[in-house]
Amino acid sequence: MSWEERVKKVVPYVPGDQPKFKDMVKLNTNECPYPPAPGVERMLKEMSYEDFRLYPAPGADDLVESLADYYKVKPSQVFVGVGSDDVIAMAFLTFFSSGEKIFFPDITYSFYPVWAQVYGIPYETKALDKDFHIKASDYTYANGGVIFPNPNAPTGLLEPLSVVEEIIRVNKDSVVIVDEAYIDFADEGSSALPLIDRYENLLVVRTFSKSRAMAGMRIGYAIGNERLIKYLNDVKFSVNSYTMNRPSLLLGVEAVKDDAYFKETLSKIRATRERMKQELVQIGFSFPDAQSNFIFATHRSLPASEIYGALKEKHIFVRYFNTPGIDNYLRITVGTEDEADILIDALKEILKERNSL
Amino acid sequence: MSWEERVKKVVPYVPGDQPKFKDMVKLNTNECPYPPAPGVERMLKEMSYEDFRLYPAPGADDLVESLADYYKVKPSQVFVGVGSDDVIAMAFLTFFSSGEKIFFPDITYSFYPVWAQVYGIPYETKALDKDFHIKASDYTYANGGVIFPNPNAPTGLLEPLSVVEEIIRVNKDSVVIVDEAYIDFADEGSSALPLIDRYENLLVVRTFSKSRAMAGMRIGYAIGNERLIKYLNDVKFSVNSYTMNRPSLLLGVEAVKDDAYFKETLSKIRATRERMKQELVQIGFSFPDAQSNFIFATHRSLPASEIYGALKEKHIFVRYFNTPGIDNYLRITVGTEDEADILIDALKEILKERNSL
Repeated sequence: MSWEERVKKVVPYVPGDQPKFKDMVKLNTNECPYPPAPGVERMLKEMSYEDFRLYPAPGADDLVESLADYYKVKPSQVFVGVGSDDVIAMAFLTFFSSGEKIFFPDITYSFYPVWAQVYGIPYETKALDKDFHIKASDYTYANGGVIFPNPNAPTGLLEPLSVVEEIIRVNKDSVVIVDEAYIDFADEGSSALPLIDRYENLLVVRTFSKSRAMAGMRIGYAIGNERLIKYLNDVKFSVNSYTMNRPSLLLGVEAVKDDAYFKETLSKIRATRERMKQELVQIGFSFPDAQSNFIFATHRSLPASEIYGALKEKHIFVRYFNTPGIDNYLRITVGTEDEADILIDALKEILKERNSL
Repeated sequence: MSWEERVKKVVPYVPGDQPKFKDMVKLNTNECPYPPAPGVERMLKEMSYEDFRLYPAPGADDLVESLADYYKVKPSQVFVGVGSDDVIAMAFLTFFSSGEKIFFPDITYSFYPVWAQVYGIPYETKALDKDFHIKASDYTYANGGVIFPNPNAPTGLLEPLSVVEEIIRVNKDSVVIVDEAYIDFADEGSSALPLIDRYENLLVVRTFSKSRAMAGMRIGYAIGNERLIKYLNDVKFSVNSYTMNRPSLLLGVEAVKDDAYFKETLSKIRATRERMKQELVQIGFSFPDAQSNFIFATHRSLPASEIYGALKEKHIFVRYFNTPGIDNYLRITVGTEDEADILIDALKEILKERNSL
């Protein structure tokens, strides 16, 4: 056997484009259109570059404590990683390694099958219903674990907490990961977080990349019962002792501290989303009710792929998945009010030119 | 089976203590005693916190290009990760997954067996000779891969390039990783880097944590032929799209840019190391010839564990491994000239008090 035959060959996840135009409107990777909290700017100026010569705290203590404080849990119930991708990857390796099939929806975050592939975890996808909803009854069979996002991606659709709890409840013998990357944009009371005390098999995963405007800092976290978090940390410490660098620890704490700014950002994004929904409907789009910072929209007459290409020519970037079942949809990130105006105007123009308005 | 029985149970790597005393002398984790390059400070002040809302470049392009430029290789021959631990973990997953035993020395970086364990990779350790040298002939048997540090850790001993090349040459059918975390402190011409054009199975791994004074930023890299790097990137993109955050990309480039500062730092550390060697010999220590930024020393009469404890009481931290074969050694990081003075004075005092001088 050659060295090359010994290599693990995988088909990697393809992240959204990161185009670099000066004049672009970037609504393709669900970033926050507003900057991080002002405390982040202040801390960036204050931090000492000389300290960079020293390793960061391996337990990421200050960041863990600030999150524990914010969510009123113990620090031993919080795990942090290099974005929620790192957190979920570690969770796959820790909790989904029994050799049994794990379950997740067929239309969902497309990284799930990739993690399963790279760690050799068998999986079975469960079809969403015709309205893109998760059917809890699909998840009642024996499995090695369950994961789904709520709200789901790329649909933006929120499952009621009763459905989420049902899935957790019937799967007491495997770990259920609820990927809440977008939950901060959903209605109050939608999060599974209050359930962690009742279900020791529940891991809730969150990120700083969307609602906390720090995609560029790579910070994600998980909250669950202490034993889950201990196992997760054991695996993390078997892969990389120090995952969070000094700036991410210092700046992450600042982002958590400023709750007023956080809530203001959320309410601006929610308001723009609701306005975009109305305007999109008026020009012939429909979509599952978006409870995220993006809208998953399809047009009554013009194919999504064509709209995607036409927007791109105008340097307006949205996300298009050439995947069966969703290949006539666009995932449009909610931007600023100005970006929403530019997008809607551009869509009107594109539709008018093609007699589709 | 309960959820807990489904968990992957591992014994994690234990990193060196990160004590937090104001007056301490920290010589326990091989950090650089000098700050990062001045450009790092400048860029820290210049970078825009507003950009943190956007994802970083998934390919870490600027950092990859600056390293490619520095080492006169193509960008497609460079892989970067969250410290060399992340780089090596990815390399284990990518190259050592054939199910065959991998080989590494019995006395070496203690993370190797941990990575093997977490990814389910069988391994066999090869004993060093009585002078702590690697025996190339041990690595001539069929295997799933080979890894060793050069200089080795925690011994600090450098293998001549002829021995390194011999191991690479006889293992053309598996990947050989030379972990050069400490090579910048060794004599010129010791690196396996020039061999990458001749051996497509060779991956050389380096870090910013030691010689580039950026342990707190978590930056490591690997250099090899384009196919190796492509496979490594495929696996990396199957685990986490964006591993390097914006500050690490921007600051990493600055550290690479300032070669004069880098060389000055190295020469200061080497000079202090040589001085420390002389003084340690005078007070009864011996050690393999250190070609790293640490000295692996044993005392002719006082047990290492006792010296370790006595130093700790004085807030002088060195590393002690309670591991058979090396449990009478201390791994002492080379610090500043002042830190060397404090250490040597403290050692004299400890030895004198115990009638061991």
